[in-house]
Amino acid sequence: MSGTTEIEQLIVMLSRLPGLGPRSARRAVLNLLRQPEARMLPLARQMERTAQSVKTCSQCGNLDTVDPCNLCTEPMRDHSTVCVVETVGDLWALERASVHRGVYQVLGGTLSALAGCGPDDLNTRSLLERIEAGGVKEVILALGATVEGATTAHWLQEKLSAYAVTISRVGHGVPMGGALDGLDDGTLAAALMARRSLG
Amino acid sequence: MSGTTEIEQLIVMLSRLPGLGPRSARRAVLNLLRQPEARMLPLARQMERTAQSVKTCSQCGNLDTVDPCNLCTEPMRDHSTVCVVETVGDLWALERASVHRGVYQVLGGTLSALAGCGPDDLNTRSLLERIEAGGVKEVILALGATVEGATTAHWLQEKLSAYAVTISRVGHGVPMGGALDGLDDGTLAAALMARRSLG
Ligand SMILES: [Zn+2]
Ligand SMILES: [Zn+2]
Repeated sequence: MSGTTEIEQLIVMLSRLPGLGPRSARRAVLNLLRQPEARMLPLARQMERTAQSVKTCSQCGNLDTVDPCNLCTEPMRDHSTVCVVETVGDLWALERASVHRGVYQVLGGTLSALAGCGPDDLNTRSLLERIEAGGVKEVILALGATVEGATTAHWLQEKLSAYAVTISRVGHGVPMGGALDGLDDGTLAAALMARRSLG
Repeated sequence: MSGTTEIEQLIVMLSRLPGLGPRSARRAVLNLLRQPEARMLPLARQMERTAQSVKTCSQCGNLDTVDPCNLCTEPMRDHSTVCVVETVGDLWALERASVHRGVYQVLGGTLSALAGCGPDDLNTRSLLERIEAGGVKEVILALGATVEGATTAHWLQEKLSAYAVTISRVGHGVPMGGALDGLDDGTLAAALMARRSLG
């Protein structure tokens, strides 16, 4: 690509994104370069605006441009039912499926000795605060059906047993070894419907 | 995704790129949003710089940040051999393979009644100017082995027959590392036609 440093550099940066390789990064850049002003510049500006305005919700850990996020301030939501997920991607997957009308808590990961992720690394403080402030009736653990997910669910269940809240976990439907993000809407709905009380 | 308009809008824009869908666009955005300042912002800025600095080379039609492009001004290149390609993507592919040490001419498409692309839509003027200025000895037609590619090659061959230049085209046949079983009939026919005596 002959010292075309700006273009080359852009392709290199894009090709590092998950799901893209050098080939699709090149295709994307060539496509955008057909109309640099009309297509590439607006995308760059949108990306800049997003990067500069994104905030982590102090209540639930969701990513949004306002804090608290739009989910936490939506009046029609059932704020007494909190669905605990591992990642923002999992939250988005549940929202796309429209299967949870309560609010969320994004842990930001799972307990994992391998990944060096301990209890203090998980975003649970704002969940406990919400429970202590009263008004939370049920906590649904919607964690992945992985060893780490199960370990985290067990740990969280113990941690929450001191409070007067119903604890449930998503049930049938989450395939063993699978993450929530990527599941079809029906499977997500079934998993929520089949949640089992642990309390 | 709950009225997260900036983030949502970015995902929509990314998912329109070739090779990406909504799923990979979401994954890419979530990945970048882990470090908005350290990862998403630099990518946005790089994209903006590229969009604002990209130029179409007036000599060959390549995309670069300078005009004439870095290929056209590279002193070690053989400027008497011009390789004619359909797209900038084709030029990049040949450059990655390091198989052509001459210069290029990017047509920007092929003759196609269906796509409404006629002779005037193809970037040939600068090729003719280079030939008329003298110094071009050979024109290699590296067009796709499609009906449109063949039609364009034929048309260009006629157009260039008035000049004292050698005209050649890339060979068609069995791709290196490929088995005959599985190739389409056209490729097999071309491979047989292009057979070379070994004796
Ligand atoms: Zn929130
Ligand atoms: Zn050039």
